[in-house]
Amino acid sequence: MMEKLMLQLEVDQLNAAYAAALDERRFDEWPAFFLEDGHYKVQARENFDRGLPLALIALESQGMMKDRVYGVTQTIYHGPYYTRHVVGPALVLGEQDGRIRAQANYAVFRTRPGDASEVYNVGRYIDEIVRTPAGLKLASRTCVYDSEMVLNSLIYPI
Amino acid sequence: MMEKLMLQLEVDQLNAAYAAALDERRFDEWPAFFLEDGHYKVQARENFDRGLPLALIALESQGMMKDRVYGVTQTIYHGPYYTRHVVGPALVLGEQDGRIRAQANYAVFRTRPGDASEVYNVGRYIDEIVRTPAGLKLASRTCVYDSEMVLNSLIYPI
Amino acid sequence: MMEKLMLQLEVDQLNAAYAAALDERRFDEWPAFFLEDGHYKVQARENFDRGLPLALIALESQGMMKDRVYGVTQTIYHGPYYTRHVVGPALVLGEQDGRIRAQANYAVFRTRPGDASEVYNVGRYIDEIVRTPAGLKLASRTCVYDSEMVLNSLIYPI
Repeated sequence: MMEKLMLQLEVDQLNAAYAAALDERRFDEWPAFFLEDGHYKVQARENFDRGLPLALIALESQGMMKDRVYGVTQTIYHGPYYTRHVVGPALVLGEQDGRIRAQANYAVFRTRPGDASEVYNVGRYIDEIVRTPAGLKLASRTCVYDSEMVLNSLIYPI
Repeated sequence: MMEKLMLQLEVDQLNAAYAAALDERRFDEWPAFFLEDGHYKVQARENFDRGLPLALIALESQGMMKDRVYGVTQTIYHGPYYTRHVVGPALVLGEQDGRIRAQANYAVFRTRPGDASEVYNVGRYIDEIVRTPAGLKLASRTCVYDSEMVLNSLIYPI
Repeated sequence: MMEKLMLQLEVDQLNAAYAAALDERRFDEWPAFFLEDGHYKVQARENFDRGLPLALIALESQGMMKDRVYGVTQTIYHGPYYTRHVVGPALVLGEQDGRIRAQANYAVFRTRPGDASEVYNVGRYIDEIVRTPAGLKLASRTCVYDSEMVLNSLIYPI
């Protein structure tokens, strides 16, 4: 029982820390939420539901994530915006062979300079999480988003 | 203390599982979140606050809920849309005579094909929850919504 | 471990109770979430990030909060609206010298009579929390909002 409580706490804290890093624009810290060979994918639910492979973004290592962060912060020209993640308590689905399966609904709000905040991307995190000496890490996070029309291009991680 | 922690965990997991079932369109599973004689009501906060009985939807058994699901999925003509529920941690108000009283704020986002996600319905779940051998079940859930102008008709459960 | 679990529970319940008091318009109860010399500030993230002092609202005692509530409910002329807070599980950052530091992402939705609900203000609570015989109280809450264009004037507490 104690283990179940602690696991829930740790998963929710992982999600809260992940959101805080992105919303506070500490993008350099983002890859460290994953294992070195961790996977990060952003996929429309239509494709996810049908088992289609097409994804908006698919990164397969911390190295690729670092590249992505570099691209986003240093090279891609885009209008600036803030993000704000509100993530519900995770649904912890089970633990097997050291992999914790969990999912959580999220809403990401976007605020552009001089503008009102707006709903940007809503969906579900589908996660595989692993215990490491440095705490819980994402072996994989798939962001399955409902939003069919992604407002402009999606620049920052979800 | 341990009991309080476990109760909070169980209520939040109930809410997360409920949201997941609806958002993943597993509507057939929805009535099973309630007791057989469970009540489900969707009511404008204006009416709720004044103690008026008028509700948008009021179902008084699992049987009525099954009917509703059948109607929604098989017979009602309506434009398709996805929902996404983001529910905050529940406020567990107490337990008396085996009834747990809890409430939680929710935001439901709607996404129509080819469109951006939008705020659909926001409000508060007011719940009476009962322990059963199959886990926590809703004796009653009242969805008290702020949204005065319900976007089109409200088709799927909140 | 047990302490960590209980602290998380208490902080999340504080946030949920705070949100419920505001959303249910029990404004008179709002100052009691703070210490007598508690601070409440609402600040744009641009100013917060740059360490600038400018804030939309800055109250430095329960007395000032009571004044504010009186002003909002009795004297300020404004169009009525409902609020709905959806707050994610808090990120508890640590406890030192009896001060608990925590933060949580929030989204506040607004509903005006006869209108659809809309995103009103999103941001982050940055809190210092103290244990008292009456439970956890806010020594200070800073609401750092992303929303650059605050929809009309911000009347009710965030």
